[in-house]
Amino acid sequence: MSGVVVQQIERADNSVINGLAHCGVSTVHEAQGRTGLMGAYMRPIYAGARIAGSAVTISAPPGDNWMVHVAIEQLKPSDILVIAPTSPCEDGYFGDLLATSAQARGCRGLIINAGVRDVRDLTEMGFPVWSKAVSAQGTIKASLGSVNVPVVCAGAHVNAGDVVVADDDGVVVVPRANAVDVLAKAQAREANEADKRKRLAAGELGLDMYKMREKLAEMGLKYV
Amino acid sequence: MSGVVVQQIERADNSVINGLAHCGVSTVHEAQGRTGLMGAYMRPIYAGARIAGSAVTISAPPGDNWMVHVAIEQLKPSDILVIAPTSPCEDGYFGDLLATSAQARGCRGLIINAGVRDVRDLTEMGFPVWSKAVSAQGTIKASLGSVNVPVVCAGAHVNAGDVVVADDDGVVVVPRANAVDVLAKAQAREANEADKRKRLAAGELGLDMYKMREKLAEMGLKYV
Amino acid sequence: MSGVVVQQIERADNSVINGLAHCGVSTVHEAQGRTGLMGAYMRPIYAGARIAGSAVTISAPPGDNWMVHVAIEQLKPSDILVIAPTSPCEDGYFGDLLATSAQARGCRGLIINAGVRDVRDLTEMGFPVWSKAVSAQGTIKASLGSVNVPVVCAGAHVNAGDVVVADDDGVVVVPRANAVDVLAKAQAREANEADKRKRLAAGELGLDMYKMREKLAEMGLKYV
Amino acid sequence: MSGVVVQQIERADNSVINGLAHCGVSTVHEAQGRTGLMGAYMRPIYAGARIAGSAVTISAPPGDNWMVHVAIEQLKPSDILVIAPTSPCEDGYFGDLLATSAQARGCRGLIINAGVRDVRDLTEMGFPVWSKAVSAQGTIKASLGSVNVPVVCAGAHVNAGDVVVADDDGVVVVPRANAVDVLAKAQAREANEADKRKRLAAGELGLDMYKMREKLAEMGLKYV
Amino acid sequence: MSGVVVQQIERADNSVINGLAHCGVSTVHEAQGRTGLMGAYMRPIYAGARIAGSAVTISAPPGDNWMVHVAIEQLKPSDILVIAPTSPCEDGYFGDLLATSAQARGCRGLIINAGVRDVRDLTEMGFPVWSKAVSAQGTIKASLGSVNVPVVCAGAHVNAGDVVVADDDGVVVVPRANAVDVLAKAQAREANEADKRKRLAAGELGLDMYKMREKLAEMGLKYV
Amino acid sequence: MSGVVVQQIERADNSVINGLAHCGVSTVHEAQGRTGLMGAYMRPIYAGARIAGSAVTISAPPGDNWMVHVAIEQLKPSDILVIAPTSPCEDGYFGDLLATSAQARGCRGLIINAGVRDVRDLTEMGFPVWSKAVSAQGTIKASLGSVNVPVVCAGAHVNAGDVVVADDDGVVVVPRANAVDVLAKAQAREANEADKRKRLAAGELGLDMYKMREKLAEMGLKYV
Repeated sequence: MSGVVVQQIERADNSVINGLAHCGVSTVHEAQGRTGLMGAYMRPIYAGARIAGSAVTISAPPGDNWMVHVAIEQLKPSDILVIAPTSPCEDGYFGDLLATSAQARGCRGLIINAGVRDVRDLTEMGFPVWSKAVSAQGTIKASLGSVNVPVVCAGAHVNAGDVVVADDDGVVVVPRANAVDVLAKAQAREANEADKRKRLAAGELGLDMYKMREKLAEMGLKYV
Repeated sequence: MSGVVVQQIERADNSVINGLAHCGVSTVHEAQGRTGLMGAYMRPIYAGARIAGSAVTISAPPGDNWMVHVAIEQLKPSDILVIAPTSPCEDGYFGDLLATSAQARGCRGLIINAGVRDVRDLTEMGFPVWSKAVSAQGTIKASLGSVNVPVVCAGAHVNAGDVVVADDDGVVVVPRANAVDVLAKAQAREANEADKRKRLAAGELGLDMYKMREKLAEMGLKYV
Repeated sequence: MSGVVVQQIERADNSVINGLAHCGVSTVHEAQGRTGLMGAYMRPIYAGARIAGSAVTISAPPGDNWMVHVAIEQLKPSDILVIAPTSPCEDGYFGDLLATSAQARGCRGLIINAGVRDVRDLTEMGFPVWSKAVSAQGTIKASLGSVNVPVVCAGAHVNAGDVVVADDDGVVVVPRANAVDVLAKAQAREANEADKRKRLAAGELGLDMYKMREKLAEMGLKYV
Repeated sequence: MSGVVVQQIERADNSVINGLAHCGVSTVHEAQGRTGLMGAYMRPIYAGARIAGSAVTISAPPGDNWMVHVAIEQLKPSDILVIAPTSPCEDGYFGDLLATSAQARGCRGLIINAGVRDVRDLTEMGFPVWSKAVSAQGTIKASLGSVNVPVVCAGAHVNAGDVVVADDDGVVVVPRANAVDVLAKAQAREANEADKRKRLAAGELGLDMYKMREKLAEMGLKYV
Repeated sequence: MSGVVVQQIERADNSVINGLAHCGVSTVHEAQGRTGLMGAYMRPIYAGARIAGSAVTISAPPGDNWMVHVAIEQLKPSDILVIAPTSPCEDGYFGDLLATSAQARGCRGLIINAGVRDVRDLTEMGFPVWSKAVSAQGTIKASLGSVNVPVVCAGAHVNAGDVVVADDDGVVVVPRANAVDVLAKAQAREANEADKRKRLAAGELGLDMYKMREKLAEMGLKYV
Repeated sequence: MSGVVVQQIERADNSVINGLAHCGVSTVHEAQGRTGLMGAYMRPIYAGARIAGSAVTISAPPGDNWMVHVAIEQLKPSDILVIAPTSPCEDGYFGDLLATSAQARGCRGLIINAGVRDVRDLTEMGFPVWSKAVSAQGTIKASLGSVNVPVVCAGAHVNAGDVVVADDDGVVVVPRANAVDVLAKAQAREANEADKRKRLAAGELGLDMYKMREKLAEMGLKYV
């Protein structure tokens, strides 16, 4: 089942991808019905990055990063690498050399359910990574995995070409086929929130704005 | 037992609260006999904040943030929201809209034994949060909880109106009735430490300054 | 077995120590055959520090920091304190007063398989710490431990005088006797990597640079 | 705040305590409105025990079991020891000698948010323990704690004399003042469940028995 | 995206399912190329059970077990319930009443990436469960989820009708379409292992049986 | 540094080894000054086993069990295998075939800071294992490690030939050179405890037996 590289994958339009990046993880996650979120243990190596891109997926043996080299050849500008080891691992699969190579092909960042290293260099390069761990522990090149096959990464199912959005709130996966629709809903949420934000900043209460008082009383809430 | 909002709570004097903030968590924790510390997994979303305030407590069902809206109405300037879910949860109960609303009422920050989201916005707003997790996962509004009842948050017992102090070292709870006394002791510690810091910086050893050598020898410490 | 302070320890040459610091943890770890790495849960209290120094080791009872005072007297310029509790503990053994004293003796930082506190002060002082936790919880001075005996710290064996290297990627221990050799190998790796980095940045693929295509085909990798 | 032994505590009636034991943790937890449950990491050292008793509480320093000896003198038949360290600890505070002493005074078991040891002996003695860890690591007798003061144990607030119920599902605390009422509600649940169990065993569906179909359809559930 | 119940699912033949149960998790996992294994934190509530069945999947909101009632109606003999909460949760979704109902319909067991309760009763009933936690914490019935949609459970992707195999080694998922093929490979492994077991029991070394010596020497293994 | 098999190791006398097994982990750990204990996460796959043996150590790459085959050839009757991966791993390195082979050479059990599988078979064979995890995930045979070199296993330093003692309380390592002395001390503790156990069972209090009352009063303990 492993040992396969899928070369042709479909990607969402760049304008859709960039629109999703702009909305950010929490808004996109809400917009698609609260699905596709990776585990909260996936943390960025530095604060402030907000990216989206098409997933180039890697199913990798634990402690073996050979397939990363294979995957980099498949990268197109705006892509994001998504690495899912086949058993739990926190070794450092990826460092500054691989990042240099990926960045040279237009890759926007890395999502890895394992470890990353050279984080100071990656930070200086502006190559963002969301990972389970930071670890200097290197990996080997002994076994095959696959590239651009479906993977489960940090609890989320990812198909190659799905749109991955990542920021300080975490990482969410948008199935490619839904990307246009999810973007529309996310932008609608944003517009809607801008107005609410103003009213709340002015001191209006959510209790009133959302008309919650009656429902709460009916449920039996008691003020004492 | 849930479904109650206590509207009148007593608070410590603002000068006492601000004094405790100035001393910081570690000093205050020592000053009150090493009690009231929340678990070390409660981490700030950004470094450098140091706050204190009166606790407005929320006992919330897992994954349900309805009571946060109710609690915000109870906030007075200098208060801090303390959210304790009734079973373990890392969902994102709180984001930038709620923070906008809380900040509009003078709230100084949030302590939550669960998740928070929109951390980039919260950071830009200067609204500090100490949480168990960062998570984009939203919550529902289906069940009642209570506001300003006693809660256990991250292992610490908190009554509404207790003084909560939070900084890069974590979060500590000072029972309201003890706040004046604890502040006095904390300030005494600070004064005492300033002198020690100078002597240590000048090269004096703790072994000598605290006169430990004799006791250590008596206990059997051997230099080889 | 406890209650011993070893006063004379051998140290590596300062130029070797500084060379190892310059190479950083990931390179040094590779250079010595992927041994001596501490667990990835050992994280720096602030980003960007990169240090190396001779280990002054402390075997301390859980929640008891008495031996830290004893160890500070043994510090020489460029040393690093390495504290290993004898049972799991996340209490804050070390804060700004001890850091002031250690820094006055030329100590470059602290590695502790437990907690640290006053992290805001330590950050301002530029005293870097790698720890398992940040915790305001203080410790007592009731039981003896030992100084400069062999310890296991976060899964790595450390002898007093071994070179400890720490940066954003973690902490690695280089046995003193191997330090010169490891430095040579680390520097060779660095030189070698500089060239690779340039070629990768120019768009050359790792698949070609490392001549992996043939081996992968032979293993059965299929492009579809 | 530490260094206190409260000698007179009020206890619930034995018939109430035994009734609660018979109902078990899950039923009692429901009956009191889903409050008072300790964290799920508190596991029994052997399967099958189901006990209830009056809490004799111990607030103990980390790694120091001196107060356990003090607490044993305060035990009366049907009591349960509840040990809460003041900072996280998994050392083995309690083993077969202490169990022998506690059992001689009629103690029914131990709840400890730390470690226990001699578990083979305790199993043979039929002395049940719910703990965070099993650990051979011994403790010291150097610092005071308190007995029969309020504690937070594994996230639950416990006052001395509260009824603690423990079985394979975990540990729940019933405030003494509520014990009679909670027992009545728990027994009502049990009676109610017996009938339901029969109907479900006979093949009736919960969907029908609880008349859920209409509500689900109204919420929008679609069968495809 | 939620609120859907798929009523018609395809299942593997019972003889195939039972054959996979007989082979057990480790053999099946090897036979299908080391894919489909759930996380090792999924542990059985009692030792010794070994089952296989067709997955009836439940995507459930955190802390809400309403969909379990819906799913039970969809169960056929030999099925296994697979519950995946949409955000991390350790509440007790399932207890003896639901087990009675499921067992009445021929259900063989439960796989749940959350908590279970009434484990003593479930053990007595012989209804095996693999779960992330044991917890008395009950759940609510407020939000819709879905039944028989694809889910990610403990890191494994599960489609309704896939064969789930569970024993003391954990839980593995076999895609329905592959079940016949995987069974054949698993049985071949078993036959092959029986012979090896005999030779190893007789004292033959794996080094010789697998002819490893030469390869090891070639790799550079040194005997000293 | 890897790729070495040390063939000649010294072992303690069998009578000493068996004496240590009889004393058990907690007593032995106390007897040697509370050193050498492995982390409490190392749990037995079944309850009730109590063994001791000479350590045959394996330093293994993560997810690679090739060296286990090499180590088995080095086993002598009464030995115990100790496997330490060089980076964190929970894969199942060891199952019933390897256990059959090890048992055929007189091996008493396995200590592994990783995963084990086929636990039902191992239980039936009476081959005890203490591990970090149970996992069906298999391993590869691609890289060299070493046999009978010093390792750190679950936080404890182990030299080949050290005596490893394991039971329901965990795992402790006794340096070979200290084994006779530690046994004497352990047996003295046992004799001493037998008398105490009788007195405590008869109702005598530890407070009196250990004459603690005066010291406690002097420390300031207050009875209220």
